[in-house]
Amino acid sequence: MAHRTLKIGVVGGTGYTGVELLRLLAQHPHCELAVITSRQEAGTPVAAMFANLRGRVDMNFSAPSDATLKQCDVVFFATPNGVAMQQARMLVDAGVRVIDISADFRIKDITTWEKWYGTKHACPELVAAAVYGLPEVNREQIKRARIVANPGCYPTSVQLGFLPLIKSGMVDLDHLIADAKSGVSGAGRKAEMHTLFSEASDNFKAYGVTGHRHHPEISQGLSLMAEREVRLTFVPHLTPMIRGIHATLYARLTGGADLQQLYEKHYANEPFVDVLPAGSHPDTRSVRGSNLCRIAVHQPQGGDIAVVLSVIDNLTKGAAGQAVQNMNLMCGLPETTGLEQIALMP
Amino acid sequence: MAHRTLKIGVVGGTGYTGVELLRLLAQHPHCELAVITSRQEAGTPVAAMFANLRGRVDMNFSAPSDATLKQCDVVFFATPNGVAMQQARMLVDAGVRVIDISADFRIKDITTWEKWYGTKHACPELVAAAVYGLPEVNREQIKRARIVANPGCYPTSVQLGFLPLIKSGMVDLDHLIADAKSGVSGAGRKAEMHTLFSEASDNFKAYGVTGHRHHPEISQGLSLMAEREVRLTFVPHLTPMIRGIHATLYARLTGGADLQQLYEKHYANEPFVDVLPAGSHPDTRSVRGSNLCRIAVHQPQGGDIAVVLSVIDNLTKGAAGQAVQNMNLMCGLPETTGLEQIALMP
Amino acid sequence: MAHRTLKIGVVGGTGYTGVELLRLLAQHPHCELAVITSRQEAGTPVAAMFANLRGRVDMNFSAPSDATLKQCDVVFFATPNGVAMQQARMLVDAGVRVIDISADFRIKDITTWEKWYGTKHACPELVAAAVYGLPEVNREQIKRARIVANPGCYPTSVQLGFLPLIKSGMVDLDHLIADAKSGVSGAGRKAEMHTLFSEASDNFKAYGVTGHRHHPEISQGLSLMAEREVRLTFVPHLTPMIRGIHATLYARLTGGADLQQLYEKHYANEPFVDVLPAGSHPDTRSVRGSNLCRIAVHQPQGGDIAVVLSVIDNLTKGAAGQAVQNMNLMCGLPETTGLEQIALMP
Amino acid sequence: MAHRTLKIGVVGGTGYTGVELLRLLAQHPHCELAVITSRQEAGTPVAAMFANLRGRVDMNFSAPSDATLKQCDVVFFATPNGVAMQQARMLVDAGVRVIDISADFRIKDITTWEKWYGTKHACPELVAAAVYGLPEVNREQIKRARIVANPGCYPTSVQLGFLPLIKSGMVDLDHLIADAKSGVSGAGRKAEMHTLFSEASDNFKAYGVTGHRHHPEISQGLSLMAEREVRLTFVPHLTPMIRGIHATLYARLTGGADLQQLYEKHYANEPFVDVLPAGSHPDTRSVRGSNLCRIAVHQPQGGDIAVVLSVIDNLTKGAAGQAVQNMNLMCGLPETTGLEQIALMP
Repeated sequence: MAHRTLKIGVVGGTGYTGVELLRLLAQHPHCELAVITSRQEAGTPVAAMFANLRGRVDMNFSAPSDATLKQCDVVFFATPNGVAMQQARMLVDAGVRVIDISADFRIKDITTWEKWYGTKHACPELVAAAVYGLPEVNREQIKRARIVANPGCYPTSVQLGFLPLIKSGMVDLDHLIADAKSGVSGAGRKAEMHTLFSEASDNFKAYGVTGHRHHPEISQGLSLMAEREVRLTFVPHLTPMIRGIHATLYARLTGGADLQQLYEKHYANEPFVDVLPAGSHPDTRSVRGSNLCRIAVHQPQGGDIAVVLSVIDNLTKGAAGQAVQNMNLMCGLPETTGLEQIALMP
Repeated sequence: MAHRTLKIGVVGGTGYTGVELLRLLAQHPHCELAVITSRQEAGTPVAAMFANLRGRVDMNFSAPSDATLKQCDVVFFATPNGVAMQQARMLVDAGVRVIDISADFRIKDITTWEKWYGTKHACPELVAAAVYGLPEVNREQIKRARIVANPGCYPTSVQLGFLPLIKSGMVDLDHLIADAKSGVSGAGRKAEMHTLFSEASDNFKAYGVTGHRHHPEISQGLSLMAEREVRLTFVPHLTPMIRGIHATLYARLTGGADLQQLYEKHYANEPFVDVLPAGSHPDTRSVRGSNLCRIAVHQPQGGDIAVVLSVIDNLTKGAAGQAVQNMNLMCGLPETTGLEQIALMP
Repeated sequence: MAHRTLKIGVVGGTGYTGVELLRLLAQHPHCELAVITSRQEAGTPVAAMFANLRGRVDMNFSAPSDATLKQCDVVFFATPNGVAMQQARMLVDAGVRVIDISADFRIKDITTWEKWYGTKHACPELVAAAVYGLPEVNREQIKRARIVANPGCYPTSVQLGFLPLIKSGMVDLDHLIADAKSGVSGAGRKAEMHTLFSEASDNFKAYGVTGHRHHPEISQGLSLMAEREVRLTFVPHLTPMIRGIHATLYARLTGGADLQQLYEKHYANEPFVDVLPAGSHPDTRSVRGSNLCRIAVHQPQGGDIAVVLSVIDNLTKGAAGQAVQNMNLMCGLPETTGLEQIALMP
Repeated sequence: MAHRTLKIGVVGGTGYTGVELLRLLAQHPHCELAVITSRQEAGTPVAAMFANLRGRVDMNFSAPSDATLKQCDVVFFATPNGVAMQQARMLVDAGVRVIDISADFRIKDITTWEKWYGTKHACPELVAAAVYGLPEVNREQIKRARIVANPGCYPTSVQLGFLPLIKSGMVDLDHLIADAKSGVSGAGRKAEMHTLFSEASDNFKAYGVTGHRHHPEISQGLSLMAEREVRLTFVPHLTPMIRGIHATLYARLTGGADLQQLYEKHYANEPFVDVLPAGSHPDTRSVRGSNLCRIAVHQPQGGDIAVVLSVIDNLTKGAAGQAVQNMNLMCGLPETTGLEQIALMP
């Protein structure tokens, strides 16, 4: 099947999500990078900032321009929160498909969003129209979407980990626990003290136990799965590696089932979810640079607690890779196009 | 107060616990290293193996000899499991104080021990006599002990984290969860594949979800605190740092209390437990090379789940440092002698 | 141009070079993995050992078998030194193209080889026939070769770094210095003490200053370039990263020239050598997982010392990637086929 | 011998040199911390910023105040460059001993200093009076100094490495090469992009090949040793570890000597320089957190190039530890007081 080439715009290509997106798009057989914007770096060659793209992305960052973006087939926002909501309406109206990798369109309840993101939402009506871009949950809606809210990294790993269990109807929904560990790139490419090498290396710590922006996003997703409100304790941690999220999930079982079979069956046809054999423990490195989520499920000592281990690369399945997966779905391409890189190991 | 100098023997000084113990003892004002044994390295200068000890420990490893060890005041076993139980009886009978940093005397139920350690116990009668060396629980017994079973690293961090909560009597003892993360030195100084730099670096993984030797040790300790059997889910993880354990503990509250006050009060007089201010998240590096356990306690969103964050250096408070703390107690020295190193940060 | 599919055999697929080779071959459009041997792991699924290959390499390791290997078009040896020299003759005689990623055929002088590798060479007559597989030096001979000796990792980075300078004829060939730094994967996937995470992490050290096996290989290559014997001081170091080599090269200039222009011109048409703009410092991560060598050249303060900075991924351009590049050349495929992965950054 | 307690002021205690200095001073038997200033953090408890100091440094940062500093016996400047030169005159005039850990007083030639530090020197007359605080070179002058310029980290490792060789008079002084590798803490505790964990981890690179501020400082020191001007090529590199410098030094020999004996003899009485046995390679970790410099010297293959390997902890012997060593000398204390910590290994 021949596919035409998609003209792609990337708004905000200077962060880690941006460079990962450019890595994937530059190798995608049906994409042509039309414009990569950065207000601050306008005029700088993209490859001068990201040396891995030398010889592969021969463009400069350009100042954001509505006219140029409107001529794209697809525009990705790899911007800080609060930018996409300013520009998405104009693009959607111009018939451009929009994929927001930031958090602007993820949370349906505007009041909740405004509380956690600390600002007034500029475009609440588009929030309703936006489809939450977790293909394993919303594949059909994504295919028809004009605007997709690409899930956060923690939310992707936690939701994919809990999904079969919650769908099974046999867990205590009032005491779900997600103990999640993220590599440092999850904090973004920002000059901040706490993510300096000398601070974050050879160290491990929790953060945000009192509250984290991904908490309401995860709770919303789990509640939709459960068709009732769930209660989740979510504790994120910073771990000294660049890429990767490991979510360790705990749920009290209220019924009996073969968890291994449950997970294998649920994900049998998913191209990007790999359920490991019984007794396994996934390494984050086994998905480094790939779009896969690998999952193992345990029921230690036959007790009433299910333990799910779910790993992703936070920049790929947790951000840019999933965004390309959504693009493929929205544009009628095979879902795995341009996403078949094998994880780099060691 | 003047103290006489203690003659010290170290059996098995070639592992990470060994070198940490030697670092502490070489700087201890009341200790004299009399003998450091290693069957395999007999004749090798200690400082040729551990360059940090050059100029500070000017001895060779020697072949194990009962006669020499019997002349010591205190003998530490920093051996693999299964060695101390062969030699402890002889030393105790000779009036030597014995501190076993391995696991031979930690578990009171011999059947349980034999199941997890895969061998017949050589000296079950001494197990009953041995005092479990967690000073924050057993200080007075340790002072009178002839043989101390030094706790494991995970057990130290988990028990100190749960202790005030369990003593308060207001948690669901059937669904305790300990999600623990260890630095790689916890696996010991052994030529093994899974702890190679190229395997363990830039990676994160759980292990032993189906069962870990520290599980029965922790359960025994928590059950003694609770004065009934508790049920614990314990999931250890390997994190890419050298030293440090971070235990994230979850417990369902069955009553109301000010957790911050509970913890501060419980540990007010403990020299080696530091309860952080409300809202804190301890870094493992804040105890790197020190004998401290730092703890923070949270009750996220005022829900019914308590979250405790407990960090130690697995080689210090989790092994050699706690062993020296026990020696100080057993020998009538001030408990903090030789253990006041400030953590190395960054 | 349509190409037939090549049947590929991999001897010794359990090391880091092996898994990198499998990653590249599994994504190569004209290769079919026919057999992957491992005496020790025969029967084990390849993807059980290397989780990144799950779903991509659905074969088991098999016991080495001459019959099976003879039916391949190309056989790679990713074995410890000393294996390929036992089997290569049989395969070459059967018309199979052989690429030895180990060191068996790299050094032309048999006495030198035997001195450094500590064993008698089993097949000296094939050493003469083998082509040293550095395409930037020997491209035409490689195309016609039946057996290629794939260069070592240090030798690749050092030779590519010195090549234009030596060819220019304006350096003191008696005092070349190569100060090289390698990631830990260069030591291979072997259970050894000095490459444990707890030994190699947060540490830096030189090794082999008194002599290293790659020294004669590099000297041989540089001497061939210079058409006279050169004298090189080579100091390798171990640096706490997984992949990557950074060679810092020093040479005294005996004439004047625009070094930047010299390097740019020399490598203008090379697909896998990227000369950076004047004043640059290449990151090893800019080639992580890619087959590129990036080079910068400096003449600090206009003095008479040239400083060359040359980086490669030791497992890709320094081993498996260069082996695939050689295969492409030997089999008439475009040289870059299957080797266009963009480096993973961050 | 009884010593009175010294009242200590620390100006600028919020960087890595600052926290290391506080770690050492808090454990020093003859020091009392009187004041720790930080304009920006005035009022913040020191231990709130550096959790390792909890319970050990119970003071707040205070705004800089001349009156308070004048009452100290010793004032350390752990400030960015350009601060000490504004305040030192006033303190010296008040009889306070000043130790500047920044670069303000290191370079005797004011024009050179102003070129490299990009500002006019505020106090050139004190530069002449200041003693360069490398005890192994200037011990007697340091004892009598009112103001000491504490050496930089690279300069310490490189000068100690070259010292015996240059003193021997048998090297080519026109082609000295120092290939130096530093841990990331050398870049300071500043929110900058290139030292983020995700940039600096799993990566290796050179920097400043065209010029580095430590170059003139090293050249000045080596020239003083040689009693003539030397020419040095200096290439610094960033290596993914927190602490440590490894300097690999190359010099062409112009005469014959037993280098091992030369080094051992030269440093026989130095408490903080440890010459390793012939054939050794020092690990940076062997000096982690200690004030030692460990050195090995090689003459590979009996050629005419000497290779010296010199390691220090950049924050200890390369900054705060050496500053305390200088304080001990200036105040008549035994030189090693408070500096006998054994390196933390692993």
